[in-house]
Amino acid sequence: MKLPASTEWVLHCATTLAQLEPGAAASTTQLAQYYDLPAPYLAKQLKTLVRAGLLAATTGPRGGFRLARPASEITLLQIVEAVDGTSSPYECREIRQRGRGALPAEECRRACVLAEKMAEAHEAWRGNLAGTTLADILASLPPSAPARTRQRLAGTT
Amino acid sequence: MKLPASTEWVLHCATTLAQLEPGAAASTTQLAQYYDLPAPYLAKQLKTLVRAGLLAATTGPRGGFRLARPASEITLLQIVEAVDGTSSPYECREIRQRGRGALPAEECRRACVLAEKMAEAHEAWRGNLAGTTLADILASLPPSAPARTRQRLAGTT
Repeated sequence: MKLPASTEWVLHCATTLAQLEPGAAASTTQLAQYYDLPAPYLAKQLKTLVRAGLLAATTGPRGGFRLARPASEITLLQIVEAVDGTSSPYECREIRQRGRGALPAEECRRACVLAEKMAEAHEAWRGNLAGTTLADILASLPPSAPARTRQRLAGTT
Repeated sequence: MKLPASTEWVLHCATTLAQLEPGAAASTTQLAQYYDLPAPYLAKQLKTLVRAGLLAATTGPRGGFRLARPASEITLLQIVEAVDGTSSPYECREIRQRGRGALPAEECRRACVLAEKMAEAHEAWRGNLAGTTLADILASLPPSAPARTRQRLAGTT
């Protein structure tokens, strides 16, 4: 199982936007040059975060993207699921109801115990990622990081 | 992120083999008919479990597959990782070291905090699946299940 490569992009871009001054925004071009990413595809991912309510898009000459709410209210899970969806990596196709071993429908009203266990593991993964916010990530960076991030972002066109 | 469809097959087939009498085996044909699965592709998956040390293959007219060790010593994690590998779904391509925002190498000796958090979530998933054995799955089935499973398996050719 693999998350899309853009997962790394959006996690880093959201972390970068969390380091802007209040009210400031960064454009797709700025973020693409900051991380050397293909701007058109990055733009698509950033718009996905806007649709998920995590980023806000502003227009005008100094327009771009900013966090839609405080960094302490945006979790890694929300960012990851914005680009990859919420479904479990395990897909139960109900093979227990097929073939010579097929269980009768009345024994299959409850989810299969294997599917249940796989869902529990997915919830453990989700719960872990829901426990970390962008504010936690920022708190782990060196104190000098935000100023440097802002300076390098501004230096791009 | 998606696990392969064969994940469901191997979890169910291992659960089925865990219900055999000690020393008994089931063939690929029997298991394929039991779940209505394509035998050649199922055979490939079962061999993967043999290579992982979870199943043993026996030859001869009553040959086939059986668990290579007690059901209490085979976890769901071992079965899932036998077919999908152990790597994290999150791939860190070190974009923090690229573009205008590139961090100097000396600041990147430690893994990126985002990669660390994603790895922690993967470990939460792994830990959860490592906490359930085939014996736990068997204990959750109705008491009549193993006899029925054996009967239906034997009815196949």
